[in-house]
Amino acid sequence: MFDQSYVIGVDVGTSSTKSLLLNDRGLVLSSARVDHCLYSPVTDAAEQDPEEILAAVVQAIGQTVQTSQIPASQILGLSFSTAIHGLIVIDAAGKPLTRCIIWADNRSADWAEQVKRSPQGSGIYHRTGTPIHPMSPLIKIIWLRQEYPEIFERTSKFISIKEYIFYRLLNQFVIDYSIASATGLLNLKSLTWDPEALDLAGISARHLSELVPTTQVLKPIKAEFAAAMGISPETPIVIGAGDGVLSNLGLGAIVPGTVAMTVGTSGAVRAVSDRPLTDPQERLFCYALTPDRWVVGGATNNGGVILNWLRQQLSIETTHEALIQLAQTAPVGAGGLIFHPYLLGERSPLWQPEARGSFLGLTIHHSKAHLVRAVLEGIAFNLRMIFQVVQELTGPIHTIKAAGGLTASGLWQQVLADVFAQDILFPRERESSGLGAVILGLYALKVIDSLDVGFTSLSEVYRCQAIPANVEVYQRIMAIYQQLLPGLQREYGAIAQLQQELSGNPPTQLGN
Amino acid sequence: MFDQSYVIGVDVGTSSTKSLLLNDRGLVLSSARVDHCLYSPVTDAAEQDPEEILAAVVQAIGQTVQTSQIPASQILGLSFSTAIHGLIVIDAAGKPLTRCIIWADNRSADWAEQVKRSPQGSGIYHRTGTPIHPMSPLIKIIWLRQEYPEIFERTSKFISIKEYIFYRLLNQFVIDYSIASATGLLNLKSLTWDPEALDLAGISARHLSELVPTTQVLKPIKAEFAAAMGISPETPIVIGAGDGVLSNLGLGAIVPGTVAMTVGTSGAVRAVSDRPLTDPQERLFCYALTPDRWVVGGATNNGGVILNWLRQQLSIETTHEALIQLAQTAPVGAGGLIFHPYLLGERSPLWQPEARGSFLGLTIHHSKAHLVRAVLEGIAFNLRMIFQVVQELTGPIHTIKAAGGLTASGLWQQVLADVFAQDILFPRERESSGLGAVILGLYALKVIDSLDVGFTSLSEVYRCQAIPANVEVYQRIMAIYQQLLPGLQREYGAIAQLQQELSGNPPTQLGN
Repeated sequence: MFDQSYVIGVDVGTSSTKSLLLNDRGLVLSSARVDHCLYSPVTDAAEQDPEEILAAVVQAIGQTVQTSQIPASQILGLSFSTAIHGLIVIDAAGKPLTRCIIWADNRSADWAEQVKRSPQGSGIYHRTGTPIHPMSPLIKIIWLRQEYPEIFERTSKFISIKEYIFYRLLNQFVIDYSIASATGLLNLKSLTWDPEALDLAGISARHLSELVPTTQVLKPIKAEFAAAMGISPETPIVIGAGDGVLSNLGLGAIVPGTVAMTVGTSGAVRAVSDRPLTDPQERLFCYALTPDRWVVGGATNNGGVILNWLRQQLSIETTHEALIQLAQTAPVGAGGLIFHPYLLGERSPLWQPEARGSFLGLTIHHSKAHLVRAVLEGIAFNLRMIFQVVQELTGPIHTIKAAGGLTASGLWQQVLADVFAQDILFPRERESSGLGAVILGLYALKVIDSLDVGFTSLSEVYRCQAIPANVEVYQRIMAIYQQLLPGLQREYGAIAQLQQELSGNPPTQLGN
Repeated sequence: MFDQSYVIGVDVGTSSTKSLLLNDRGLVLSSARVDHCLYSPVTDAAEQDPEEILAAVVQAIGQTVQTSQIPASQILGLSFSTAIHGLIVIDAAGKPLTRCIIWADNRSADWAEQVKRSPQGSGIYHRTGTPIHPMSPLIKIIWLRQEYPEIFERTSKFISIKEYIFYRLLNQFVIDYSIASATGLLNLKSLTWDPEALDLAGISARHLSELVPTTQVLKPIKAEFAAAMGISPETPIVIGAGDGVLSNLGLGAIVPGTVAMTVGTSGAVRAVSDRPLTDPQERLFCYALTPDRWVVGGATNNGGVILNWLRQQLSIETTHEALIQLAQTAPVGAGGLIFHPYLLGERSPLWQPEARGSFLGLTIHHSKAHLVRAVLEGIAFNLRMIFQVVQELTGPIHTIKAAGGLTASGLWQQVLADVFAQDILFPRERESSGLGAVILGLYALKVIDSLDVGFTSLSEVYRCQAIPANVEVYQRIMAIYQQLLPGLQREYGAIAQLQQELSGNPPTQLGN
């Protein structure tokens, strides 16, 4: 019986939904991936279609089940990882009044600035663990209330993509503590909605879903969806958590002294604490995994997306692989060319939506290979800055585990190890959030009795060793990288405003 | 008789020697151009071969004479414009011990820094009119004495490329006040070698050539050279002046309120004063044209050479024309992308050899068209900064006349007018230094009695009008451009040193 039970982990990310079917010892039997569209109808907007994502979830699960040829009866359950911060506005009939306004949407930047400067700002961050930033659903709700009162008035519920999926699959409005802890509205100590945050948002608890633990089991699934997925309607669904905290779990980075680093389109560095922990300088988030495991970290907007920019906007090479190969022809340190990667503004470590990117220190000897290498190195320096802040708050880090699309490249692995000046472990299984969802699912379904599970898929790692000579070069460059920042940060506001005015775009509008 | 006399102007520049044959009313009858090689055997070196340049002079003059079919007897004389700052070391036998170490050579940077910081630095600048900088022959001599004592000890004379040419053509060591005024060794008030500067260089007046006015007439030319040029050995040679001051003359920019701007590989902005004038903040040079016409201005290292870098190093387009066309597809202001053009370090307006280039304010929306346009605009902002300093020192400027290779493009003309926020005149004849040499030659040979000559070639201009809406955009960007500078300037020293160390080049060596 034991080796005949299987769990499906579903990871609803920004660019795609991935589904993984594993046995109870952590072996991946099948997987599927369905890509999402990102809509940006006006400047700073970043939206996704909730029905499109629901369809991706159903399709990905269905494909996984079908490929695996496992009978529905042996599927013990499903468990969900979803992107955090997204906001969907629902009317009384359960109909969406907006698309899902995702973390990357920057339209509420002015309201974030106001709240941050207000006397309440700091208290709200420290109680809710969510930095005051346009990514935060709290800020998005304030923006909606102020700029789109006609939508705000018609709202019955403010929900996330995970709540939307479960509302559609199960007809329930529930939210796990993990997703809730990233709304800017949850009091981390009491695990209840924070009255002052609700007040600032201008809403009450009835506008939000019912709070449940991340191990909560839900059912039954509506028949038509269960059929489309090829599973029984009685299959238990573990509500799961946010993708970041589950990535830590999936990487086995849930013990003190270990951090998980993700480098995909964006990037993040996260450690685990046994209690909610916030940063006196307000540079880190704190989100829930379980009541005694909290994930403390920082996320950058500017990861592999910058490499796509080099290809698409600057026409440097046509494939990612060719770009990496070109970077490899430039020397360590890119001939002293320094790159600040803040093309999409920045969350950690700057928390400055108006931040911008720069190539600094150009000479006539720099070629496009130097530019590409400087970009890789700049992204790594920025991640290192986040790492240092995390270390300050959580104590010394002896183990770094990294995952995400970009970590597949040998050059990237070496640059990261050399910039971080320590060995980095790269697990072979890079779908860390989906794997984390599976582990949490097995735990919630009582197949395993601890989250510190010894899956083989976790122990298969490549250890990339830092090269001392490179470390020395990077330490010198990083000192200059950081010295250059404060002066530029003082000008980013003026630059961003100028760019906004020059863009000649019509005033901010909702896409839906 | 009057309309049967002709003068040849020879302009020995950095990248080529050009020869122009004009009649005495300023009409160009023939011209020729012979390119030079630039040698950079080690980092920061920039050298040219004196014999190769002499050959180019002979060849260019010969071609001009031959093409024009003017009989040698009707050629009234030759007059010379040459690049300033170059240093050639000659032994007692008249044999060069070095190549011509030109203005762009940066190997003496550390010595420039030392002299600048010394108690004598400021006084030397104010007495000699030449900024303390590695371009200055004074600094190059100090560098040679300190780092190549074995060459210094064997030196009989320190000369410029013009002195070398005349030594070879006429067997005389003579230097005009204009070239001398750019050596850092000439006292502008007394028009004699400055004893304190000589002392600092560790040389005496016998190591330098005989000082003569820019209208000095020399002859006879050695027979073999006269024959190769197709002219009579008795043809008078007017010694002429430096290329910058002659460009003012050739553009008709020698009256108060008028500046000449050159934008070629490098660039410069220059006004005329009736007496030597130096800048309290030491940002401008002051070189002689005649005893009562002094040229005050600033030169930038970073002109069209940066566009070549875009093509050659970043592979953005293959021709200059395509590059300009691409820039034209980006909006005015390049979407708020700011470029500091200091890829070759900078003379005016920063006087910081360690300065470096930067793209600042990058967003995901910027394409390579934005990058190219930002480069054009950045070069123009930098020229505007020099213009402002010149205006501060010499009084209000109502007329700007521009010449040089880059000013042929309509986009460039418009960007310059919009950035300068005033109309700019672009003479059709862009060989302003050669034309200036002809005018000075005609004056020295007493064909004309004033330098304020009304040549048709001077009055044929295209007036490019500033567009108010663009002016407004550029004024906003320029404010940010300048705000960003001081913070970066504080870091350039560290960046330059890092780059020097990373370059892995062997220690400084002389190329010859």
